[in-house]
Amino acid sequence: MSQTQVEDTAVKISVEESVGLGFLTLDRPARRNPLSAETMREVTAALLELSADERVRVVIVRAEGPVFSAGHDLTEMIGRTLEDERAIFDGCTEMMETVQRIPQPVIAAVQGPAIAAGCQLAASCDLVVAASNAVFGTPGVKIGLFCSTPMVALSRAVGRKRSMQMLLTGQTIDADTAADWGLVNFVVAPEDLDREVRELAGKITTASPLTVKIGKQAFYHQIDLPQAQAYEAMAETMATNAVTCDAQEGMQAFVDKRKPEWRNK
Amino acid sequence: MSQTQVEDTAVKISVEESVGLGFLTLDRPARRNPLSAETMREVTAALLELSADERVRVVIVRAEGPVFSAGHDLTEMIGRTLEDERAIFDGCTEMMETVQRIPQPVIAAVQGPAIAAGCQLAASCDLVVAASNAVFGTPGVKIGLFCSTPMVALSRAVGRKRSMQMLLTGQTIDADTAADWGLVNFVVAPEDLDREVRELAGKITTASPLTVKIGKQAFYHQIDLPQAQAYEAMAETMATNAVTCDAQEGMQAFVDKRKPEWRNK
Amino acid sequence: MSQTQVEDTAVKISVEESVGLGFLTLDRPARRNPLSAETMREVTAALLELSADERVRVVIVRAEGPVFSAGHDLTEMIGRTLEDERAIFDGCTEMMETVQRIPQPVIAAVQGPAIAAGCQLAASCDLVVAASNAVFGTPGVKIGLFCSTPMVALSRAVGRKRSMQMLLTGQTIDADTAADWGLVNFVVAPEDLDREVRELAGKITTASPLTVKIGKQAFYHQIDLPQAQAYEAMAETMATNAVTCDAQEGMQAFVDKRKPEWRNK
Repeated sequence: MSQTQVEDTAVKISVEESVGLGFLTLDRPARRNPLSAETMREVTAALLELSADERVRVVIVRAEGPVFSAGHDLTEMIGRTLEDERAIFDGCTEMMETVQRIPQPVIAAVQGPAIAAGCQLAASCDLVVAASNAVFGTPGVKIGLFCSTPMVALSRAVGRKRSMQMLLTGQTIDADTAADWGLVNFVVAPEDLDREVRELAGKITTASPLTVKIGKQAFYHQIDLPQAQAYEAMAETMATNAVTCDAQEGMQAFVDKRKPEWRNK
Repeated sequence: MSQTQVEDTAVKISVEESVGLGFLTLDRPARRNPLSAETMREVTAALLELSADERVRVVIVRAEGPVFSAGHDLTEMIGRTLEDERAIFDGCTEMMETVQRIPQPVIAAVQGPAIAAGCQLAASCDLVVAASNAVFGTPGVKIGLFCSTPMVALSRAVGRKRSMQMLLTGQTIDADTAADWGLVNFVVAPEDLDREVRELAGKITTASPLTVKIGKQAFYHQIDLPQAQAYEAMAETMATNAVTCDAQEGMQAFVDKRKPEWRNK
Repeated sequence: MSQTQVEDTAVKISVEESVGLGFLTLDRPARRNPLSAETMREVTAALLELSADERVRVVIVRAEGPVFSAGHDLTEMIGRTLEDERAIFDGCTEMMETVQRIPQPVIAAVQGPAIAAGCQLAASCDLVVAASNAVFGTPGVKIGLFCSTPMVALSRAVGRKRSMQMLLTGQTIDADTAADWGLVNFVVAPEDLDREVRELAGKITTASPLTVKIGKQAFYHQIDLPQAQAYEAMAETMATNAVTCDAQEGMQAFVDKRKPEWRNK
């Protein structure tokens, strides 16, 4: 995929076919990987490109340099019209929703501070692995711009009191606290981050891609529904899943105590 | 109640009148207590039978053998039509919803692995006590059948990132982790499980059954509502509760510093 | 503000202009600070009065004596009509919703037991700091009156299994457990409570009041919405926030590495 890149993109993508992984790398380390309007468009496009690549079973979102992402590019938000600002936050929401909309699971590999929209990007990923030196924060309140869109992902991950604390004080939490609060799945030594993320991804890449796609889509469909409606939808999803070739093969293989052979790659 | 059983049921029920407890026991230990369509119908019927028994103040769901439940019976889900599969998952949902619909609190006593629909059954109970050697998992993804219905109960108990981790990797979590994540209320030594469950139940059986019924029903009604609607409903529930004989007696007894005498047994 | 008080109020209010704090103090220590219908009206009125005071950037809810609040005044709920009870619980809900409706953040300083509606009042505050000897509980079930309105705030703070445990058993949890479960933000030594609450508040009083107001209002608007609707609303909120003078000033000050000067005091 690297051949599709041009020199000046803020986002790199690459595919490692042998392990079924697609990598999206924020690549403006000197500027702390700002999520400018242009970069957010690039991220969205990169997610869609990776998701359309049949070799990619799991997408990893990672970043170059000491900072995961410092959030929006403030310089482009000063002196703009309401229309301009709307375009920025619509593009931001589009990016966050794309992370959850593509069929492949997305794992954030957070190697350093994930701030404001950077925190939101991590929180929007299906799974998060953080280096022990990573921190998470929503400090917009300090500069007059409350982190109201990051709040959506954050409050749904860590709950009311804890998200309020981060949002109102603007103070960061460390990786261990983030794991304790349910924002992060695993905290690892910085030097192990790449290996641990690959290991986690490897537990998913062996599964049927069709099954994973059904499951991820189902998850975000049901999570916001009242329980009775969620059950109604999921009973149908699971019944439909059960008659797919891959489920039939998987169940038969389990009964036969052999490895399944997925038909839907 | 044991007289109502026939030899070949997968579910045993019994009542201990002296302590106000009804027991529902999964009793196919050699087969790891599979939740076949027939067994799920038996569980639903047993819950309704126990709930209709005025001696029963709290229901305990437990299992024989080393495994709590390995989940659905895969052998009956291979080679079936979509209609067949729908019937299975509709029956499963009916069972899970019945746990929460009956007026008595239901406590799961989890003595071993609670897997897939077995994990969902535990997660659907009002309270969960687990032996320290119990594990919880939703490994359907590994056999091509994503745990989409267990996901409904699981994600509502442990939140987004943690349920995604269990669902996407298929890996189990131990009892302590389950308690840390809010899926389990208490972790106890395996040899203390029965005693601890009875002790927990004993804290509830002394309450007014009418009050407990009002409260349990109210809980599941309000939990999925937006807060303002929840408050509107609960203000009315609590006002109505307050004028019942048992609340009037309970408040007067509290003021008088004496033990209350419930009229609604 | 103290001049607006009359002798027999159960609620004291005061303002410390130099630090931007408004204090609401429950002041019936000998009676364990009961939330009678009259007291709840006083709390609501006091919240509105403090919120209308432009010197107040953060409101602190605290209590005199060893108990934060023992909850409703049972003596006024015995022998009443359904209409009377409705009036009490409507007034209670009005108080709880006012805490979240006023623009300033509200911090509960919990120095002792917060029980039933007292637990609900703490849970309704945006942030909670608890002395290490504080406890939290919803024991209504024991006196025949299930804590159905406290349940609304409690279950949204600590989740399903843990709120069910508190509601069904009536047993209290200690401050550390409350922090572990997300009901409390910080646990501090009793003698440090006042200082720690002021320190936490001080992290918020330096922010733009307009920004904090936008953020708090946005939080409670989005938290109950499905995620897609939440994003739609918050993208607009954040775009509108971005064009305010305070956000423009805050962003420019950040870029210039200087302290911002808020225009909207």
